[in-house]
Amino acid sequence: MTEVTRELARWVAASQFETIPAAVRQSGVRSLLNWMGCAVGGSAHETIDLAIRALAPFSGPGQATILGRKERFDILNAALINGMASHVFDFDDTHLKTIIHPAGPVASAVVAFAEHRRVTGAQLLHAFILGVEVECRIGNAVYPAHYDIGWHITGTAGVFGAAAAIGKLLNLDEQKMIWALGIAGTQSSGFREMFGTMCKSFHPGAAARNGMAAALLAEQGFTSSNRVLEAPRGFAHVMSTSRNFDEVTRGLGEVWETALNSYKPFACGIVIHPAIDGCIQLRNEHGLKAGDIARIDLKVDPLVLELTGKRTPQTGLEGKFSVYHSCAAAIVYGAAGEKEYSDAAVRDAANIALRDKVHAVAHDNIAEDEVFVRITLKDGRELDKHVEHAIGSLERPMDDHALITKFNGLARDVLPVAKADALREMCWKLESLQNAGDLARAAAHD
Amino acid sequence: MTEVTRELARWVAASQFETIPAAVRQSGVRSLLNWMGCAVGGSAHETIDLAIRALAPFSGPGQATILGRKERFDILNAALINGMASHVFDFDDTHLKTIIHPAGPVASAVVAFAEHRRVTGAQLLHAFILGVEVECRIGNAVYPAHYDIGWHITGTAGVFGAAAAIGKLLNLDEQKMIWALGIAGTQSSGFREMFGTMCKSFHPGAAARNGMAAALLAEQGFTSSNRVLEAPRGFAHVMSTSRNFDEVTRGLGEVWETALNSYKPFACGIVIHPAIDGCIQLRNEHGLKAGDIARIDLKVDPLVLELTGKRTPQTGLEGKFSVYHSCAAAIVYGAAGEKEYSDAAVRDAANIALRDKVHAVAHDNIAEDEVFVRITLKDGRELDKHVEHAIGSLERPMDDHALITKFNGLARDVLPVAKADALREMCWKLESLQNAGDLARAAAHD
Repeated sequence: MTEVTRELARWVAASQFETIPAAVRQSGVRSLLNWMGCAVGGSAHETIDLAIRALAPFSGPGQATILGRKERFDILNAALINGMASHVFDFDDTHLKTIIHPAGPVASAVVAFAEHRRVTGAQLLHAFILGVEVECRIGNAVYPAHYDIGWHITGTAGVFGAAAAIGKLLNLDEQKMIWALGIAGTQSSGFREMFGTMCKSFHPGAAARNGMAAALLAEQGFTSSNRVLEAPRGFAHVMSTSRNFDEVTRGLGEVWETALNSYKPFACGIVIHPAIDGCIQLRNEHGLKAGDIARIDLKVDPLVLELTGKRTPQTGLEGKFSVYHSCAAAIVYGAAGEKEYSDAAVRDAANIALRDKVHAVAHDNIAEDEVFVRITLKDGRELDKHVEHAIGSLERPMDDHALITKFNGLARDVLPVAKADALREMCWKLESLQNAGDLARAAAHD
Repeated sequence: MTEVTRELARWVAASQFETIPAAVRQSGVRSLLNWMGCAVGGSAHETIDLAIRALAPFSGPGQATILGRKERFDILNAALINGMASHVFDFDDTHLKTIIHPAGPVASAVVAFAEHRRVTGAQLLHAFILGVEVECRIGNAVYPAHYDIGWHITGTAGVFGAAAAIGKLLNLDEQKMIWALGIAGTQSSGFREMFGTMCKSFHPGAAARNGMAAALLAEQGFTSSNRVLEAPRGFAHVMSTSRNFDEVTRGLGEVWETALNSYKPFACGIVIHPAIDGCIQLRNEHGLKAGDIARIDLKVDPLVLELTGKRTPQTGLEGKFSVYHSCAAAIVYGAAGEKEYSDAAVRDAANIALRDKVHAVAHDNIAEDEVFVRITLKDGRELDKHVEHAIGSLERPMDDHALITKFNGLARDVLPVAKADALREMCWKLESLQNAGDLARAAAHD
C-alpha cells in the first residue's frame, strides 16, 4: 500500500510558499478574514464566557490573545477558545465537498502560535493554506461515509490540519511531520450528536489545541505510528466505513482545496439563503420599505419548509429556523447577520407584522440554492426575482465587498469601529506583515 | 429506549461512600497503590521527559505535582503527564473483561485535582471507585467489538471515568453529571495503531485531562447532548459495531467492577507470566542459583512462542518479548520488574548464559495462564513445577505483600527509600487522610 501519511507529510514539510498560486493565497487571505470576523463576533457568546470561566484557573502564561476580549491565555488554551468562538454562530466557512469548516481548527492554532514564536504574515498564510489542504484532503478521502456514521468532520479532520500547520511553522522534517499527524490523529474526535449544544463549537477549538500540541510534541521527538491515515487500525479504517486514499495524495500542489472554500452571507442554515438573497435584492433594487408590502410569496425547495418552517419564532435561535422571520428581516434590515437573529429582532413588532405576510410553497423542481420571490405591493404592483444560485454558493461566491460587510457586522459589534476596521485592513495585508503576532494583538479588546 | 446516560449520571451523583462495601473500598485502595507505584516508577522515562519539555512552556500555575519529579504543573497538565507515566511501562492494572487499564485515566485526574480543591482521602477514594465503575461498565457495553475495530479502550472509555470521578468531587447534580459525561464522550479517542509508540501511554493521560476538563466545564453549565452513550450518533453506535446497554446500568451499586481489577506482577506481556512465576517459585523453594542449573524446560501455551519467542534480545524492550530472558532473569534476580528488563540486565553475561539453557515447547492443551516447568540441575536432579494459574490472575490475585514488593521495586528506583516507603504507607491509609492532596505532594521528588 502507498505510504499515504508519509507522502502527505513529505509534501507539507517540503512546500515552498512561492509555489502557491496567487489566487490560492488570496483564497487563504479571504478565509482568514472571514474566520477573524466570526471569532471576534462570537467572542461575547455565553459559550465562550463559560469555557473561559471553567479553564482560566488552569491556563498557562498570557502568551496569546482571546480575540475580541481582554483575557490572555497560553497558546494552547487560546487556540481552544478562539476556535470555539469562530464556530459558535455557525457562521464560519464551508468546504462544500465535505462540509468541513476549514478555518476554525487551523487559523485558531496558527494565529495564537504567532504570538509566541515569531513568524511573518507570509509564513502564517503558508501554514494556514497547508493546514486547510491537509484537513480537506483527509476529509475528501472519507466523506460522506465518515460523516454519516456520526462524526463531526470539522473536529475529526481538523485536528490533522492544525498539526500540519503548526508543524510547518515549527519547520518539522518529514519524520516529525509524520509524528505530528499521528499524535493528532489519535486525538481525532467529536460526535454530531452534540449539534445543538455548546459542544458543537468545542470541536474545532479542541482540534486546534490538540493539533497544535501534537506538533509541539513531535518537535521534541515524541513518536507515533508512521501510518496514522492508512494503517488497518488507523484513522480511515477505524473512523470510516469507506475511504479513498487517492483523495489525500493526488495532485498535491496542483489542485487546491483552499480555493474551494465558501462563506455564508447569512447567519442561518444554508437552505434559506436563496430566499433571503432574493428579498434583499428586491429591497435594494426598488428601495422597498416594510410598510409598502402587502404580501411576499416564495417558491422554495421542499427542504426549506421541512427545516425552517417555524411560523412564530420566539427567540433569536428559533428565528434561524424560520424562513418567515428571515425574509421579513431581509426587508426590514437589509441583512441577515447575527444581529438580525437576536431575541430583540425576532420580537420586533415591525418584523412580526411583515413575517405574517410571507407565504412559502414547496416545489419539487426547485434546486436547493434556488428560489422564486414575488413581492406584491400595497399599490398592486408585483415585483419578481428568480435567484438561480444564492449568494455564497460556489457559482456566486461572496465578493470582497460582501465579505467586508459581513466582517464589519460581526467585528464592530464587539470591538470599537476604528479597531475593527484596522483589524480588517491588517487581515487583507496578511502576506506582507513582518510579525504575524500583530494580528491577534490587534483583535484584543482594550 | 432507556435513558442510559441519565441513569448512570444519576447513580454517580447520588452515590454515598458509606454504601460501598468494605471489600470494594479495599480493592480501590489496592488499585490506587499499584497505580502510584507505576506512575512514580514511570516518571523518569524518556516519554515523560519529552512530553514535559514540549508542554512546560504552556502549563498553568504549579498547582499539582508531577509524581516522582520536581516539576509542578496545572492540574490538567499534571493529570496528562501522570497518566502517561502510569502506563509507560505497560505495568499498570487490568480489568480483564475489557482489558481496560482502569486507574490511569481516573487516578491521574483525582490525585492531581486533590492538590487544587481540598478533598478528604475518603472522598478521593469514593470518586476513584465511581470513575472506575463508569469506565469499566461503558467498556463492558461495547467490548470486544469496540476494541476489535481498533480503539484503545483505556483511552476511549477512560475519559468517561475521569469525568465522572471529577464530577463527583465537584458535587455535580444529575444534569451537570450528564453534561460532564457528554463533554467527555465527544473527546473519546485513541487508536490501537499507536501501540509500540509513545502515543500509547499518551492515551490514558489525555483521557484523564480531557475527562477532568469535561467535569470543570459542566460545573459552569457548559452543555452537551443528554444521551452521549445511547443516541444513534452517540458513543456506543459511532464507536462500536455492537453494544449492550444493560452492562452500563444493571446492578449499579450491587456489582462492582472495581473488585475485578487485577495487577501485573511482572513488567512484560501477560503470556509469559506463568513461566516466570514457576521459575521464581522453584528458585525460592530450593534456593537455586544460576550456576546450579543445567537446563530449563517449559511446556507452554502456543501464544508464548508466537509473541515472546525472541532468542537473543539485545535491548530491555526486546527482553520483554523473550521468554528465554524472562526465565533466566527470574532465576538470577528472583524478579521480573522494570529493572530486570533494563538494557543492562538483558546484556548481563550471567543472564545470557542461563537463557541459552531455556527450552520452550508449545502444547495445545495448555491454558494461557498455565505452565509446566522442569529445571534439571547439574547434579542430575529434576525439579518440577506445574503452575495452574499464574500469579496476578483473578484465580490467584497478587496479595498485599506482592503489591508492596512491586511498589517498592518501582518507587524506590525513583524516590529515596524512606520517601517511597512513606508514600506507600500513605496510600494504604488513603481512606483516613484528612487532605488527599498530601498524597501527590508525598510523591514529589525533592
